[in-house]
Amino acid sequence: MICEILSVGTEILMGNIINTNASFLAEECVKLGISCYNQQVVGDNADRLKAAFELALSRSDIVMVSGGLGPTEDDLTKETAADLFGLKLVEDEMSKAALEDFFARRNKVPTPNNYKQIMFPKESKILPNPNGTAPGVIMSKDGKHIILMPGPPVEMKPMFKDHVRPFLESLSDGVIYSVTVKETGIGESSAEELIADLIDTQTNPTIATYAKTGEVHIRISAFAPDKEEARKLIEPVEKEIKKRFKPHVFTTDEEVSLEEAMVKKLLKKKLTITCAESCTGGLLSGRLISVPGISEIYKSGFITYSNESKHKLLGVKKKTLKKYGAVSRECAYEMAFGVAAAAESDVALSVTGIAGPDGGTPEKPVGLVYIGCVVKGEAVVKEYHFSGNRDIIRAQSVTAALRLLMECL
Amino acid sequence: MICEILSVGTEILMGNIINTNASFLAEECVKLGISCYNQQVVGDNADRLKAAFELALSRSDIVMVSGGLGPTEDDLTKETAADLFGLKLVEDEMSKAALEDFFARRNKVPTPNNYKQIMFPKESKILPNPNGTAPGVIMSKDGKHIILMPGPPVEMKPMFKDHVRPFLESLSDGVIYSVTVKETGIGESSAEELIADLIDTQTNPTIATYAKTGEVHIRISAFAPDKEEARKLIEPVEKEIKKRFKPHVFTTDEEVSLEEAMVKKLLKKKLTITCAESCTGGLLSGRLISVPGISEIYKSGFITYSNESKHKLLGVKKKTLKKYGAVSRECAYEMAFGVAAAAESDVALSVTGIAGPDGGTPEKPVGLVYIGCVVKGEAVVKEYHFSGNRDIIRAQSVTAALRLLMECL
Repeated sequence: MICEILSVGTEILMGNIINTNASFLAEECVKLGISCYNQQVVGDNADRLKAAFELALSRSDIVMVSGGLGPTEDDLTKETAADLFGLKLVEDEMSKAALEDFFARRNKVPTPNNYKQIMFPKESKILPNPNGTAPGVIMSKDGKHIILMPGPPVEMKPMFKDHVRPFLESLSDGVIYSVTVKETGIGESSAEELIADLIDTQTNPTIATYAKTGEVHIRISAFAPDKEEARKLIEPVEKEIKKRFKPHVFTTDEEVSLEEAMVKKLLKKKLTITCAESCTGGLLSGRLISVPGISEIYKSGFITYSNESKHKLLGVKKKTLKKYGAVSRECAYEMAFGVAAAAESDVALSVTGIAGPDGGTPEKPVGLVYIGCVVKGEAVVKEYHFSGNRDIIRAQSVTAALRLLMECL
Repeated sequence: MICEILSVGTEILMGNIINTNASFLAEECVKLGISCYNQQVVGDNADRLKAAFELALSRSDIVMVSGGLGPTEDDLTKETAADLFGLKLVEDEMSKAALEDFFARRNKVPTPNNYKQIMFPKESKILPNPNGTAPGVIMSKDGKHIILMPGPPVEMKPMFKDHVRPFLESLSDGVIYSVTVKETGIGESSAEELIADLIDTQTNPTIATYAKTGEVHIRISAFAPDKEEARKLIEPVEKEIKKRFKPHVFTTDEEVSLEEAMVKKLLKKKLTITCAESCTGGLLSGRLISVPGISEIYKSGFITYSNESKHKLLGVKKKTLKKYGAVSRECAYEMAFGVAAAAESDVALSVTGIAGPDGGTPEKPVGLVYIGCVVKGEAVVKEYHFSGNRDIIRAQSVTAALRLLMECL
């Protein structure tokens, strides 16, 4: 089965936004064993949109589209697709109720434009969108399928997972099942070298690596008549890969993030956690608190951006700040102990560094970050040298802190 | 002039990497006043690559390509392009010297494969690549141009800036200049209705809206012989749009984010700021601290996830927590005053809400969030009802807090 990914939106053509939808959908196709040979991007223009659809339908079985479902006149994706399949749009009652409820909960009423978003062909499968006003839709004709989803990733991704993935699975005559071994601490090229022999020799299951910020995900996928058979094919390979990456593996669950794995570990060990953040300024706590159920173990945290607050709130010694500076091994150490005490917590993470673009010196360049971790009175501090802009250095620092936590637990 | 962006690489088709090259090149085209109506992504496959080139050349004047210039047999971009233009590849002496020098500086020698990378048509313009082994090339025929650049962004971007941009400038007879009015507080469909008459009647400048989480960006773009002329065309439209959105506009600078605009305002007014966060758990502070130079006004902040920490660190009354609960107007009010005092800050934001998925009740459902803002002893608390998953509710809360800050300043 061949799928083509079509991204609709002038904002992509004009470079206002990066097309993350296409990479998300491409990866999902790989997981499902669906081939993707072409991607297209086109704007909200009737003729060019039609041409893009015709080209895609001529060479693919499925056209997966994101964008162009908005309430404005510019948004033509649904109309163009229905027209190509010779289908008429009519108002959908269920979608209408959902739309009005969406606005009612915000103490607002839909604009007349919004009602354009609840028009669908009668023969189509409507995909609810609890996160926005534009439902998605699947239209099928002569064995070809057009799948339309909204453009914003926060709306598109849940819709894909809840409705599109099950639909795609139903089209296949077997299942692709995959297990993802996620590791942090070994870079992508080293990770690939470590399992090059396996990647080269395996055909079913196949092995592919994906690099994320500070993590590498190794996906093992097998095709079989059913899940049980696929799982059996995967098992020995998974075991071997886990053995090779051992202390660096934090999960084999595709859906589990590094922070989630760490929170689970803390919950299991009945350990409370806190953070004291300087350059990351709340992002580390923010990431931990993204995990539901964290309230049992995370009570409070501190953002100590100034030297004074490091002293006042965490008890970092003035002498330490003067002698070694705020970006130092010593400061990270005292911050970690200080915040553990202030939050009465078993585990504490501290981050202090120079995220740039200014503030670097030859001795302490931009990208220098110290991270401390205290577990029940035992402390470890590590020094890191990151590169990239302010956002990248801060994101890498957050991941490194979670990695240090993993090592210390 | 019409340019098409063609990205070559199986790693993009499989979703291993996000196609940031396309958005970079697209934005550069906009800046140069070159129209882009289509983008394509194709793998390292001879037939599909040829078809992609043919399609692009049939509808565009320039085909700008990144990827597929590597040393392996898979890499076919240059061969395919030369073939289409009927050009023969020969060894380029300058490129050969540069290649050997590149390896010598790394104490290595080129592999036989690398010599494939220094073969070019005699009639072409070779683009040096100081950051890698694959030079780029511009091939021209009958008024059509194919521009080939390497795939890694660290090699492609400098090559574009140093060689491709000047080439494109030499082709153009005018410039596109744009101004972006950014507003928060009016949703995308309402925003479009507010300026529908302008959008419909304007042709130069054109007006386009872009929705971000809690923001709408309205871009006004004009084409003219030079920047000054374009600016004159934009001015009256910009003035009118700003008038219609007045209290909601936070910047007209494409590069300035909502948090950056707020930090600038605070710096100008010499006001310090702090945050007390419950459900957002550090993300609000994290977003403020993403702005370079924030250290002058942000000293410390508090993450108070538990009731006890709200009482202990911020002085929220136990009675308040008991009578109204932690997610209440009263608690947000006391949190804001409490953190202003604790951080000795002029301005304070507080966020308390139910981000879900659990913890909701009929009276206080998931998505209910209270945000408080204190500016020099004056407090405002607002109630919000967000929907979506935990991540969305938290992201919306952060943007709403920045919006409330804007209203209060």
